[in-house]
Amino acid sequence: MVAQIIDGKAFAAKVRGQVAQHVSALKAQHNQTPGLAVVLVGEDPASEVYVAAKHKATVETGMTSFEHKLPADVSEADLFALIDQLNADPDVHGILCQFPVPEHLSERRVVARIDPAKDVDGLSVVNAGLLASGEAGLVPCTPLGCLMLLRDQVGDLTGKDAVVVGRSNLFGKPMAQLLLRDNCTVTVAHSRSNDLPGICKRADILVAAVGRAQMVQGDWIKPGATVIDVGITRVPHPEKPGKSRLIGDVDFGPASEVAGAITPVPGGVGPMTIACLLANTLTAACRAHGLAEPQGLTA
Amino acid sequence: MVAQIIDGKAFAAKVRGQVAQHVSALKAQHNQTPGLAVVLVGEDPASEVYVAAKHKATVETGMTSFEHKLPADVSEADLFALIDQLNADPDVHGILCQFPVPEHLSERRVVARIDPAKDVDGLSVVNAGLLASGEAGLVPCTPLGCLMLLRDQVGDLTGKDAVVVGRSNLFGKPMAQLLLRDNCTVTVAHSRSNDLPGICKRADILVAAVGRAQMVQGDWIKPGATVIDVGITRVPHPEKPGKSRLIGDVDFGPASEVAGAITPVPGGVGPMTIACLLANTLTAACRAHGLAEPQGLTA
Repeated sequence: MVAQIIDGKAFAAKVRGQVAQHVSALKAQHNQTPGLAVVLVGEDPASEVYVAAKHKATVETGMTSFEHKLPADVSEADLFALIDQLNADPDVHGILCQFPVPEHLSERRVVARIDPAKDVDGLSVVNAGLLASGEAGLVPCTPLGCLMLLRDQVGDLTGKDAVVVGRSNLFGKPMAQLLLRDNCTVTVAHSRSNDLPGICKRADILVAAVGRAQMVQGDWIKPGATVIDVGITRVPHPEKPGKSRLIGDVDFGPASEVAGAITPVPGGVGPMTIACLLANTLTAACRAHGLAEPQGLTA
Repeated sequence: MVAQIIDGKAFAAKVRGQVAQHVSALKAQHNQTPGLAVVLVGEDPASEVYVAAKHKATVETGMTSFEHKLPADVSEADLFALIDQLNADPDVHGILCQFPVPEHLSERRVVARIDPAKDVDGLSVVNAGLLASGEAGLVPCTPLGCLMLLRDQVGDLTGKDAVVVGRSNLFGKPMAQLLLRDNCTVTVAHSRSNDLPGICKRADILVAAVGRAQMVQGDWIKPGATVIDVGITRVPHPEKPGKSRLIGDVDFGPASEVAGAITPVPGGVGPMTIACLLANTLTAACRAHGLAEPQGLTA
């Protein structure tokens, strides 16, 4: 078998287009424009690139983008004062603080300060609890993106054996909750699991998120399975000295000869993250104004 | 193989004894007495039995028991006023409202009103989020009791294949989180799972919580597995007309010929629930006073 390659870039563009349509309708019908505020502390170059990409994507959908740059030595009190102001601002529907933050700040405390209804990264304890309780909250962007890709690729997920490798708060645990909500039988495996190859081989849906390059081998994959590769590791380019390339948690070549469908790295899950950030901001805005949530763009 | 029968009644008595020892030490060394407030709305006979049992067990450990009975037609405002008063009372470390409550009240809203630090049933969204995030919160009593039984029976759970059948907010989902925290590979199966027998048969640890009498058959069980039966269904007694008996989700007779260890119904998981309610109240009291948490009595 040669697997279908799941084009996350194209699908993310479609999602962003759907968000833009909803934004346009919100403006026309309700005179409301969703707004996303991004807070950047310090001058980490990678963070600046991410924030710029989020700003561009936000503006392209017709939403308002608010950028707040704070010095690396900002006090927690000053950062919290800004978050409180954004929490209270009716034009701001989503707030995210770009991580990592400098060491004198606590990411946990920063996330907890954001109004859960505006926590579009879905990282707060309250949103984790809403997800775990099957209630409407805001879901972390990357697992939400994977869920959208899976629904699009597989259709109804009911009864599928799904295996999530990795149990982080950021991805593995919310991904498992989402798959369970969609009626999969869900297994969470991790570095302490016995017989990881055997566990993976049972999966109709295999989601790898451990951050270990090419760990999942081709012969770990059930023939015909749908494989979602969330890992991103930067390694030296094998042919271009001084250059690097990104590889995933799955050994793509051999895996793509066994799987039914597979996401590549790059160009698979990655582009979905920002698309889902925009979707979450739209969802938050609809809820804030008592409007119906956008169909197909939430969990 | 003939399975070892896990004596939940004896183990629960041991846990209550440990709680009592800690309570005694708290009084002697810190002049603090943990207090549990139970709110009963209306006059449901079964609820009155449960509340009386909780009161008796609380007093027996040396803790203070506060009972509040409200009429069946109490308004939400009056119930919330009582909860607010208990939230503010420094002598009250744990609060629970006995469910079900009359239909004009919302269990979800009642739980949300209780201070998460006093929510000893562990049912609030915040406590679900803390559990899902791997942070210290209060864990629902029945899954905590099952975890204690498993740790006692199996020892280190790392790498074990654990299967939880059932995905309720009250039991299945928090049970899965606890097993994951203890480094099991965790599968959550449910009514929509394909091949439930095959999934169960993979389990080193099988936890059944679906509420369907004797659904789990003997030949669904891996030889030597540890089986925890959380189901309780009341059925007519086969030999005593007009009498009833309790049976679990597991077909006990055939299962006990395959399993390595198994909890009976009654006398297995059931007695652990109140023991863990007391343990949670003790934990909440220790935290409230900035003291070390009791070892072995928390997740």
